[in-house]
Amino acid sequence: MTRERSAPLLLTPGPLTTAIATRRAMLADWGSRDEAFIALTARVRARLTELVGGEDSHVCVPLQGSGTFAIEATLGTLVPRDGKALVLINGAYGRRMAKILERMGRRHETLETAEDTPPDAEAVAARLAGDPAITHVAAVHCETTSGILNPIAAIAAAVARQGRRLIVDSMSAFGGIPLDVRHVPCEAVVASSNKCLEGVPGLAFAIIRRNALAASVGNAHSVSLDLHDQWRAMEGNGQWRFTPPTQVLAALDQALVLLEAEGGVPARHARYAANCKLLVDGLRRLGFVTLLPDALQAPIIVTVRMPADPAFRFDAFYDGLRERGFVIYPGKLTEAPSFRIGCIGAVGPKDMEEALAAITAVTAGLGVATGTPA
Amino acid sequence: MTRERSAPLLLTPGPLTTAIATRRAMLADWGSRDEAFIALTARVRARLTELVGGEDSHVCVPLQGSGTFAIEATLGTLVPRDGKALVLINGAYGRRMAKILERMGRRHETLETAEDTPPDAEAVAARLAGDPAITHVAAVHCETTSGILNPIAAIAAAVARQGRRLIVDSMSAFGGIPLDVRHVPCEAVVASSNKCLEGVPGLAFAIIRRNALAASVGNAHSVSLDLHDQWRAMEGNGQWRFTPPTQVLAALDQALVLLEAEGGVPARHARYAANCKLLVDGLRRLGFVTLLPDALQAPIIVTVRMPADPAFRFDAFYDGLRERGFVIYPGKLTEAPSFRIGCIGAVGPKDMEEALAAITAVTAGLGVATGTPA
Repeated sequence: MTRERSAPLLLTPGPLTTAIATRRAMLADWGSRDEAFIALTARVRARLTELVGGEDSHVCVPLQGSGTFAIEATLGTLVPRDGKALVLINGAYGRRMAKILERMGRRHETLETAEDTPPDAEAVAARLAGDPAITHVAAVHCETTSGILNPIAAIAAAVARQGRRLIVDSMSAFGGIPLDVRHVPCEAVVASSNKCLEGVPGLAFAIIRRNALAASVGNAHSVSLDLHDQWRAMEGNGQWRFTPPTQVLAALDQALVLLEAEGGVPARHARYAANCKLLVDGLRRLGFVTLLPDALQAPIIVTVRMPADPAFRFDAFYDGLRERGFVIYPGKLTEAPSFRIGCIGAVGPKDMEEALAAITAVTAGLGVATGTPA
Repeated sequence: MTRERSAPLLLTPGPLTTAIATRRAMLADWGSRDEAFIALTARVRARLTELVGGEDSHVCVPLQGSGTFAIEATLGTLVPRDGKALVLINGAYGRRMAKILERMGRRHETLETAEDTPPDAEAVAARLAGDPAITHVAAVHCETTSGILNPIAAIAAAVARQGRRLIVDSMSAFGGIPLDVRHVPCEAVVASSNKCLEGVPGLAFAIIRRNALAASVGNAHSVSLDLHDQWRAMEGNGQWRFTPPTQVLAALDQALVLLEAEGGVPARHARYAANCKLLVDGLRRLGFVTLLPDALQAPIIVTVRMPADPAFRFDAFYDGLRERGFVIYPGKLTEAPSFRIGCIGAVGPKDMEEALAAITAVTAGLGVATGTPA
C-alpha cells in the first residue's frame, strides 16, 4: 500500500486510510467554473455510474457534504410528496432514513429486524402486497452499525416484482461490494467518496435512474438537497449549482484511477475480504467473538463483542492501539456491548497483521486473559 | 505569497488561490471520531467565533457542504415555522435566500434594490415598523453578483431598533471585511471556508447567537441541515453528527493560522483593498469601466462592464488569460453585460500587476482598442 506511515493507520469505516497519491491530488487549486474542472466533474460522474453498470439507464448526481446529505437528498427528490416509503431497518442507518422521512413529512413505514438479522425479502414482498400505497422501499446495503451485509439482490427482486422502486443506501459498500443495476433493479444507489472508493470525505453522490430523476421536479423539500435541480444544472453547463469541494473531487478522481488499477470492484472486494478474514481469525485466536456469523459479515467493518474480562477497558484499549499507530472506531451503535474495527481503506494484509500484533500487545499489557464476551 | 505557480492563478471569488501550506495540510488522514480531530474541530470553531467578536454571545456551527447549504440551514433553523423573514435583495445571493424560504414554505417578503444600489437602512426600518409579523431580516454583506458592499452596520442597527433579528450572508466578506457582532448586532453570520479565509471549499459555518440557537429546536425542515441538532451533538461529544470533510477542516485550520500571521482581518482587508485598487486602476488605464462606483466597491470581486469594441469577445479573453496562467470568473450574474475578476485569495500586488500585464497583452492581441463600454 502506498501510504505515508507517519500518521496513524485508520481502521475505521470512513473517513479511512487513503493512498498518498489520492491526498497529493489535493495540492492544486481549481477554478470551479473552469473547463478543467468541468471535465473533472464529467469524468468522475461517468466512472461512478459505470461502477454499477448504470451507463445506459442511470445518471450520477454528486452532492456536496456527507453521505447522509445525499441520502436525504435522494429520499426528498425521489419520494413524491404524496408517495410513501417502506424503510428496512436493522441498524442506525436504516433508522436514520426513517428519521429523515419523518422530518420531511413524507409518509413512511418501517420493517425492522434485529441488528444481527437481515431483512427478509419475502417479508418485504408481503408488506408491499398488503399496502399498494407504498411507492418506494429504502434499504441499507451494508449496515455499518454491525457490519452486516443485507441481501440487496433478493430485496431488489421482491420490490421489482411488486412494481415498486428501491433506494439503496450503499454508503459503506459502494466500490467494495459488487452491485450491478442491470441485474439488481435499483431506482437509486447512494454512496460517498470516503468509504470503499478510498477518497477523502466531503462529497457524496446518487446514481439515479434517469427517467425517475427527470420526473422528480418539484419534489425536494430543500434547495440545497434538490438532486433534480443539481442534475439539470450540471447537464446544462457541466458546472455545479453551488461551490463544489474542488480538491475532494480531484482526490476522488485519483482514487478512481487507483481502483481501476487495482482491478476494479472485484479485486478491491477480494482485498477487503482477505483483510477481514485476517482480522477475524486473529481476533478469534485471542478469544474475541464477533457479533455476526461469517455468513452475514460484510468485509467492511467487524463488530466485536465486549470482552467479559474486567481488565479490558475500551478507552485504554483504544489509546494503546493509537499509541501503536492504529486508530479503530470509537463509539458503538449496536445494542449489544461491542466495539468495531474497519477492514477497508488503503490497507493490506501486512497492515492487518501489524494491527493484530498491536491488539495482542495492548490486551496483554492491560492484563486481559481472553477476549471472550460474557 | 507562498503559492506554487505551476497551476493557474485563480482570480475568482472562491474557490480561489490558496497558500501551498494550506493545501499541504490536507496530506494527512484523520479519524473523524479521534481525539486529534475533536481538538481540531474545537480549535477552528473557537477561532471563527473570535474573528467576529462572538466568543461571549455566539457559537460556531460548522456544516458540511457549500455556503448555500449553511445559508439554507441557518434560515431553516432560526426562522420559526410561524415566523416571517424580510429578505434584502440586490443580486443573485439575496434572491437565492428568498428561493430557499419559498421552498421551505416559510413566510417571507423581499425588499429589492437595483444591483448597483445598496439596501437602505431607513427603508428596512420602515418596512419593519409597518409589519410586526416580520421576525427576521436576511441580508447579504458583500453581494458577489456585483461586488457591492452592503451597509450591514446600518441595517443591523435598524433591525435591532425594531426588535427584529438579523441573519447575515457574509459568504464572500467573512475574514476579509471586518465585522464585530458586539457592535453590529447579528443573530447569525454565515460564511464558508473558501473565500476570504483562504481555505479550500467543502465546509461552511454559521456563527449564531447562543440563546437563539438553543431556542430553535424542531424548526429545521431537514435532518442534514438542522444546525440546532448539529450544535447539540457537537457540544455533547465534540464530534460531528455525520462524516465531516476532515482534510478540508485541516486546511481551514492552517488557513486560520496564516490569517493570524498576516495580522488578522484588518491586515487581510488592507491587502485585498490594495489588490482591488491595483486592478481597478489598471483596468481603467485600458479604458474599462467598473459597474460600481468606488464608494460601493467591496475589495472582493470587481464587475467590469462589457466593452463596446466588437473585437472584445469574452471567451477569447478568458482563454487568452488562462493560457497566460490566470483564471478569471466566467459567467455573469448581473443584469448589465459584464465580466468579473476577483481580488481575494493568496494573491498580492505582484500577482495583480502580472494579471494586468496579461489583460493588456490579451486585449491587444484581440485587437481591442479600448475597454470602454457602450
